Amino acid sequence: MMNEKKERIDDLQRNGYRIIQNPDRFCFGMDAVLLTGFARCSEEDIVLDMGTGTGIIPILMEAKYGGSAYTGLEIQEESADMARRSVELNSLSDKIEIICGDIREAAGLFKLSSFDVITCNPPYMADTHGIKNPKEPKAVARHEICCTLEDVLTAAAKLLKPGGHFYMVHRPARLAEIICGLKDKKLEPKRMRLVYPKQDKEPNMVLIESVRGGKSGLRVEAPLILMEPSGEYTEEIKRDYGF
Amino acid sequence: MMNEKKERIDDLQRNGYRIIQNPDRFCFGMDAVLLTGFARCSEEDIVLDMGTGTGIIPILMEAKYGGSAYTGLEIQEESADMARRSVELNSLSDKIEIICGDIREAAGLFKLSSFDVITCNPPYMADTHGIKNPKEPKAVARHEICCTLEDVLTAAAKLLKPGGHFYMVHRPARLAEIICGLKDKKLEPKRMRLVYPKQDKEPNMVLIESVRGGKSGLRVEAPLILMEPSGEYTEEIKRDYGF
Repeated sequence: MMNEKKERIDDLQRNGYRIIQNPDRFCFGMDAVLLTGFARCSEEDIVLDMGTGTGIIPILMEAKYGGSAYTGLEIQEESADMARRSVELNSLSDKIEIICGDIREAAGLFKLSSFDVITCNPPYMADTHGIKNPKEPKAVARHEICCTLEDVLTAAAKLLKPGGHFYMVHRPARLAEIICGLKDKKLEPKRMRLVYPKQDKEPNMVLIESVRGGKSGLRVEAPLILMEPSGEYTEEIKRDYGF
Repeated sequence: MMNEKKERIDDLQRNGYRIIQNPDRFCFGMDAVLLTGFARCSEEDIVLDMGTGTGIIPILMEAKYGGSAYTGLEIQEESADMARRSVELNSLSDKIEIICGDIREAAGLFKLSSFDVITCNPPYMADTHGIKNPKEPKAVARHEICCTLEDVLTAAAKLLKPGGHFYMVHRPARLAEIICGLKDKKLEPKRMRLVYPKQDKEPNMVLIESVRGGKSGLRVEAPLILMEPSGEYTEEIKRDYGF
C-alpha cells in the first residue's frame, strides 16, 4: 500500500517513545509539542485529546506527567490507526486509547462531565472556501472542514468535569473569537502564553488554559520566544522541548 | 492652598511641551505614554480622551500626530483644572478642550457617533471593596469608583463614528473581560500589544485597538519589552518614548 510505504518512525526524545508519521498525511508540529509543555495533568487525571491525529499529544503528555487514562479522539480512520500503532509501539495500550470519531458527536461518545483535562490542537483556519479536496488529510487537519472552533468549545464544555481544565493551542488572529467563545461556554480563560518566533516578531501561536466554571481573571505568562536573533533555538526551547 | 504648593511642572521631552502635575493627586504613568505610542490619529481626526486626568494623553497625541480637535473628559474638577492650565501653558487651547464630566453621562455630553478616535487609560482595579476614602483622587484614578470597564466601553461604542478607532491600555488580568466586553459592544478587537517589564516576566499592561463595527480578526504585535535584563530601558523605549 502506497501510504504505508511513506510512513516513518520518529524518536520523540523522551522516555524512548517513538511515533509513526506519514508526511503525505500530516506530521505533528511544534504547536502540539508546545501544548504538552503548557498543559498540566496529575497522576489521577482522566484526559481527552480532541483531534489527536498521530496521537502525539497523549503520548507526550503521558511521558511528561503520567496521568491515569488518556483518550485520543480522531475523525480520520487512517490517522487513528497510525496513532493506535504508535501507542502499541510504546507499550502504552493500557494507558492510552485511540477512538475514531467526530468531535461534533463527542457528547454522545463519552460520558458528560467525565474528563479532568481536555487538550486540543484544532484546525486553525476558518476559511474553507476554495479547498480543492476537502477529504485530503492535511486539509482536514488544518481547515475547519470537520469541526469549527465552536464545535471544539461546545464539546469541551460538555465533556469536562466542573473545575476541569481545557488546554488549546491556536492562532493569535483568532484570539478574540476564542476568548469570547470560551467565556460564552463558561470555560473561563485563566492562563495564556503567546509564542513569538523571535523577540521582535508577531506571535504565531497562543496557548490558552480555561477552567470550566472558573472565576474571571486571566494570568498572561512571560513571552515564549522560540529563537534567538541568530536563528538558534532559545535556551527554554532547548531545555524544555529538546529541539 | 495646600494643593497648589505641591504642584510641579514637568518637561514632556517632546515639542517643548510641559505638564502640570500634583504627586498628592495623581501623576501620569508609563501606561499613558505607551498608549499614545500605540494609538494612531491623522490630521483630520476628532479625538476624545475619556478620563484624561492631567491631560497627558491629548497633549502627547497632539505632539505626536497632530489631529484637528481633542477633547479631554475628566470627572475630578481639580484634575480638569490642572489639565486646562497645562493646555494653556503649551498654547494648545485652540486644539485641546478639557471638559469636566462623567464618562457614565458622556453620551449626553457629546453628539453620538461623532469621534474618529477615542483613547482611554481607565482605572484598572475592579475591586472597590475596603477603599478607605473613595473620594481620594488616587483612588478615583485607580479603582472603578466613578466608572467601570463596562461604562467605558458603553461610552466608547456610543460616541465613536462607525469605523472609528478605540485605544485602551489596561491590565492583562482583565483581558478576557475586555475582549468580550468590546465584542459585545461591536467594538471589534483588531490590534493588541502586550507590555512585558522584562523578556522573562509576565506582562503588566496590554494595549488594545478596536474598531466600531470592524470584522473579526486580531493582529497581535511583537512584545513590547521595557527593560533589558540589566534593568536599562530597551532601545525601543529609549527611541520612541524618550525615557
